Amino acid sequence: MASSLTHTERWTLLLVAGASVAVISNTFQGDGAPLVASIAFSTLAFSMTFAFIRWSGPAFAKAGLKGKDMSKLRPVELPEGMGAVAASVYILVLMAFIPFAFYKDIVAATSGGGNRDVVLSITEVDTGRFLHRFPHSKLSSYQSALNTLQVTTILGIADDILDLRWRQKFFIPAIASLPLLIVYYVDFGVTSVVVPNFLVPYMPGQARLIHLSFLYYLYMSALSIFAPNSINILAGINGIEVGQSMVIAGLLIINSSLYLVPFPGNPVLNNGYAKNPHPATDSHLLTLYLLLPFLAVSTALYIHNRYPARVFVGDTFCYVAGMTFAVVAIMAHFSKTLLLLLIPQIINFIYSCPQLFKLIPCPRHRLPKFNARTGLLEPSITPWPPEKPPSKPLTAVFFALEKLHLLQVTVEPKTNRISATSNLTIINLWLVWRGPMREDQLTRELLIMQTACGFLGLLVRHTMALLIFSVDNRGKYGNAFPV
Amino acid sequence: MASSLTHTERWTLLLVAGASVAVISNTFQGDGAPLVASIAFSTLAFSMTFAFIRWSGPAFAKAGLKGKDMSKLRPVELPEGMGAVAASVYILVLMAFIPFAFYKDIVAATSGGGNRDVVLSITEVDTGRFLHRFPHSKLSSYQSALNTLQVTTILGIADDILDLRWRQKFFIPAIASLPLLIVYYVDFGVTSVVVPNFLVPYMPGQARLIHLSFLYYLYMSALSIFAPNSINILAGINGIEVGQSMVIAGLLIINSSLYLVPFPGNPVLNNGYAKNPHPATDSHLLTLYLLLPFLAVSTALYIHNRYPARVFVGDTFCYVAGMTFAVVAIMAHFSKTLLLLLIPQIINFIYSCPQLFKLIPCPRHRLPKFNARTGLLEPSITPWPPEKPPSKPLTAVFFALEKLHLLQVTVEPKTNRISATSNLTIINLWLVWRGPMREDQLTRELLIMQTACGFLGLLVRHTMALLIFSVDNRGKYGNAFPV
Repeated sequence: MASSLTHTERWTLLLVAGASVAVISNTFQGDGAPLVASIAFSTLAFSMTFAFIRWSGPAFAKAGLKGKDMSKLRPVELPEGMGAVAASVYILVLMAFIPFAFYKDIVAATSGGGNRDVVLSITEVDTGRFLHRFPHSKLSSYQSALNTLQVTTILGIADDILDLRWRQKFFIPAIASLPLLIVYYVDFGVTSVVVPNFLVPYMPGQARLIHLSFLYYLYMSALSIFAPNSINILAGINGIEVGQSMVIAGLLIINSSLYLVPFPGNPVLNNGYAKNPHPATDSHLLTLYLLLPFLAVSTALYIHNRYPARVFVGDTFCYVAGMTFAVVAIMAHFSKTLLLLLIPQIINFIYSCPQLFKLIPCPRHRLPKFNARTGLLEPSITPWPPEKPPSKPLTAVFFALEKLHLLQVTVEPKTNRISATSNLTIINLWLVWRGPMREDQLTRELLIMQTACGFLGLLVRHTMALLIFSVDNRGKYGNAFPV
Repeated sequence: MASSLTHTERWTLLLVAGASVAVISNTFQGDGAPLVASIAFSTLAFSMTFAFIRWSGPAFAKAGLKGKDMSKLRPVELPEGMGAVAASVYILVLMAFIPFAFYKDIVAATSGGGNRDVVLSITEVDTGRFLHRFPHSKLSSYQSALNTLQVTTILGIADDILDLRWRQKFFIPAIASLPLLIVYYVDFGVTSVVVPNFLVPYMPGQARLIHLSFLYYLYMSALSIFAPNSINILAGINGIEVGQSMVIAGLLIINSSLYLVPFPGNPVLNNGYAKNPHPATDSHLLTLYLLLPFLAVSTALYIHNRYPARVFVGDTFCYVAGMTFAVVAIMAHFSKTLLLLLIPQIINFIYSCPQLFKLIPCPRHRLPKFNARTGLLEPSITPWPPEKPPSKPLTAVFFALEKLHLLQVTVEPKTNRISATSNLTIINLWLVWRGPMREDQLTRELLIMQTACGFLGLLVRHTMALLIFSVDNRGKYGNAFPV
């Protein structure tokens, strides 16, 4: 891989970076414009990630972080684990953004300048400063998100370098989510879920809420284990890890933007903000502050990782991506919406379970097989040697799955025994359905599928939710319940 | 290096870890006992670091993180960058400690159980929880410390793996200190320093305080650049990096403990706490929460890094160590005390400047030279080849320094020109003064020197400060000024 930027790239990135800095420095006015600053920080993050990935590729390879791209006619060694660069830029940008996210509050807290709604009690103290009501709870939410993402990055890098074992790395996200859960406990502590309408009559006292208490923390912890690992196992072809993360991030951005649009009948103030903003506006703004730069660094990484890949992303990226989604879902109370967007990942996980839990043999890599003759990808298989064929019940299950088009089964014609089954990932399943295809085509189709599923999920979320639950948290039925 | 624990080690560590967990789970009573929990977490951290370093050594070496110990008769390859393990455990323990540090506040905030001094206004809200006064500002201080340490770790690992250039890594700590400075700005904003008594008459209006404003932020930023880099350049012999960090951490722990002891005339309550605690008690407690686990993980690392070293610590450890000191000094307002403890590092930095800034040639490594015949370390030298001798003024300076016993100069007898000068580190200077010695002896003497300087510094701090300043922040003269 060329390790320097082309002439066009250099000037484009410099221009983007320059414009970003100009916009950022202009947001220090009035109440500040955190969303504008966030967008500008994102474009800056894009430029930085793009350049750093290009420049540091050889250093990664030299440090032994490299791997062969096996789905190519002439496998070349590519730098591995470059997602760590994207994650690092992401974290640095999130840090640099802190003063911008809280600019209005800092101004109010430190100068007392007119914003009496924020400064509730002013008492001059010895040092000539004011006691104030800086929204520390918001700051500590933001910081706990940062903490969680950082420890995810550190453990991801450890995994990329040291090649941790499955049982060691499975719980990494659970540890990483600790700071988030603690702050959740202190700040919101909302552990009740809404009961679907059709179940209300059967609830004791016809309650509309169930208090899950500590089970809710288990649920959030499980979410933060599931999201990173589910992205990490839907992997193996150029661009798929970053691509799916970009789709999910994009859909979450659309979802959160819905809460920022003034809803009907609510007057808009001079400064462009709604007079009575949705109660969840603040948490959805925070979501955007986290997702916009994530989308930006992912895009820069995607450009280098798409077919034909020039770098590999490594585990760090998958972990940080999944954890970013878990973090925003927990902070802004839309974990069920996130699960709707993760449907392909959920199906892939369930479908993979027999292999993940070693019920049937699992090779180290399950990525599709490259057919050098045709240049196309085919489903990879688990061989069943004649001396160790699948058991009778398993054979029956395999044939049933084949009939449902959920498995490719190869039968040894002489013995009539199963000699191979396709590996249990939806990537292989897609190839079973659609036949062999080029790697870029496969990634494209899977990403289109992910996008379609996601839009459907959002549609369900915002229309049908009212059929199942008595309240929706979008629009005038706004409430503070976690949905 | 053996990668498994011996029988004795395994059982000792298991015992220590078990006892730690038992103590930790017992601190969830009454107001909680955060300091006891912190000590137990530290012993747990020690066990974890010890075992993880032992276990992961081969994985580090396999990943290419290894280096030769040149100061041995038979140089062996040792795992490099193992400080990253210590740093990771340190961060995980600091995270797990959050609920313990704030246990009292969490109890008060979530149950409203009797602690009316903490719960100022109780209003039941929709979800059956209470609005409360959780000390978010304390939490966000703690979290910003964590953020700073984590980004330091990430950038340190990047340096260890990618071998960043000097100009790239110099500013790493400055970026890492951003979250801390932001929270400092919001929370304390104390940017005034006390004027020494003898200068007061000359101040306009005989002011006793100077308001430094943004210069104070530059000063804190400079401190967080200086501390990590200064430890990183006082390096190169077995155990010196970790050893000096342990000495400094130990002295800072002693210093902070002084603020927890009830001072004369102040009654002690039933729970063992002073009735009118020193105003700086809280911030010094926070200091202990950060330093105790740091000392613990450093000790585990030191056991593997001391002569004859079985692992190298890498840049990550030096950065995290220095940044830990900078963080506590900034949070608890004792940056001048820290500088007193860093006197050997300051002298080493000043002494190194001519080489660091390339005024005179600087080889890549300046560690002492191992004499294989005697088995002793000797000062390493910068050669001045005959065709490129030092200039006339430089020669004069060199001879002057030699007269002051601050340099070893080798003169070519034929031409009477300087052919070599010792490298400018205090490690080499110590060998110039004391003559060649064994590596372990050298480390020991330097650490004794560091300890002696530190105690002297603390003595100056707590006795002579009153001669120079009108107030001391220890004892009944307590005040909130940064000293």
